[in-house]
Amino acid sequence: MNSQTCFFDVSTRGKGLHEITSQVQSILQSTSIREGVVTVFIRHTSASLVIFENADPSASRDLESFFERMVPEDAGGYSHTLEGPDDMTSHIRMALTRTSEVVPISKGKMVLGTWQGIFLFEHRRAPQSRQIAVNVTGC
Amino acid sequence: MNSQTCFFDVSTRGKGLHEITSQVQSILQSTSIREGVVTVFIRHTSASLVIFENADPSASRDLESFFERMVPEDAGGYSHTLEGPDDMTSHIRMALTRTSEVVPISKGKMVLGTWQGIFLFEHRRAPQSRQIAVNVTGC
Amino acid sequence: MNSQTCFFDVSTRGKGLHEITSQVQSILQSTSIREGVVTVFIRHTSASLVIFENADPSASRDLESFFERMVPEDAGGYSHTLEGPDDMTSHIRMALTRTSEVVPISKGKMVLGTWQGIFLFEHRRAPQSRQIAVNVTGC
Repeated sequence: MNSQTCFFDVSTRGKGLHEITSQVQSILQSTSIREGVVTVFIRHTSASLVIFENADPSASRDLESFFERMVPEDAGGYSHTLEGPDDMTSHIRMALTRTSEVVPISKGKMVLGTWQGIFLFEHRRAPQSRQIAVNVTGC
Repeated sequence: MNSQTCFFDVSTRGKGLHEITSQVQSILQSTSIREGVVTVFIRHTSASLVIFENADPSASRDLESFFERMVPEDAGGYSHTLEGPDDMTSHIRMALTRTSEVVPISKGKMVLGTWQGIFLFEHRRAPQSRQIAVNVTGC
Repeated sequence: MNSQTCFFDVSTRGKGLHEITSQVQSILQSTSIREGVVTVFIRHTSASLVIFENADPSASRDLESFFERMVPEDAGGYSHTLEGPDDMTSHIRMALTRTSEVVPISKGKMVLGTWQGIFLFEHRRAPQSRQIAVNVTGC
């Protein structure tokens, strides 16, 4: 059994989904773990994680549009707006998606389904540098 | 310490919650692990997981109705509709619930509360075969 | 490698976010694990977990208000209302946030970002006693 945690950064260029599957796979492959779990964790409260359809870009765009309608920036009524109209909405959209995802490992590979990719979901308008922590535990 | 990943299939007959607690428990019991974690992972982007009230069927029905209203199929405006009006809404409903859940193990059992069950949440209208991966890690 | 699960209780005094980061940190520090994962799990279906902004109380209040609007108690149409108007809405708000969160450990500490705290999100109006399970696995 072994367990190790490492980090990588992602530069986002505004709102939307950014696939990070290959970075997570590289970290797994740098270990010799064949059975276990990969934990992906985003160290921010205005961006989140989601495992999503990675074949058709229209699915990502529709998801982004849905969140614009469900948590609208122009709804008013927010107090936490120091950083602009996308400040509080970013925290809410994060709370409605995920901060951590855990993917089992079988025979040295993550068991992602055919259409599943791991995505960083950026909720701020401006470019950001985001840090992802990845732990691999297993044997 | 030990870690092992296995799989089982669930046949769904349309939208709604399908309890999978007993299948996950069986996998845990097939190991000799007493302290650790069970990771449950669904390998799909149009179905999801949720840990939910498992005593009163009216709670499940109310949850399903809420998702029909919150992410309506007849809302229009989606691009990703190749597989029908329940295509994009399935991805959104999945993103709003969970792909992975992790349950601690204490004294050889999952620490689920009295009313908690592990459910597959099917978002497509048609019957589907869904695959669940379960990893058990611990000692 | 080692793995251990323990528990603590939280008394809530009505709806809202209650930070539990320090309790989880204490459990981690009671182990000698330097690299691994902390799994936090709430054993209830009418309260949930969320990792959220812990610096500005207005962010918590805005999140709570958003959930009141998104899942309103006076919407009608629920069947599962035996325990009052906050019964079914609590289950829905739980389903939209999280039951488990997993935080990687690096150099003996959880890798939480600067503004991240771990919160219990209480969805019932009346005071409750809630139980949290924490597993620490690693080496």
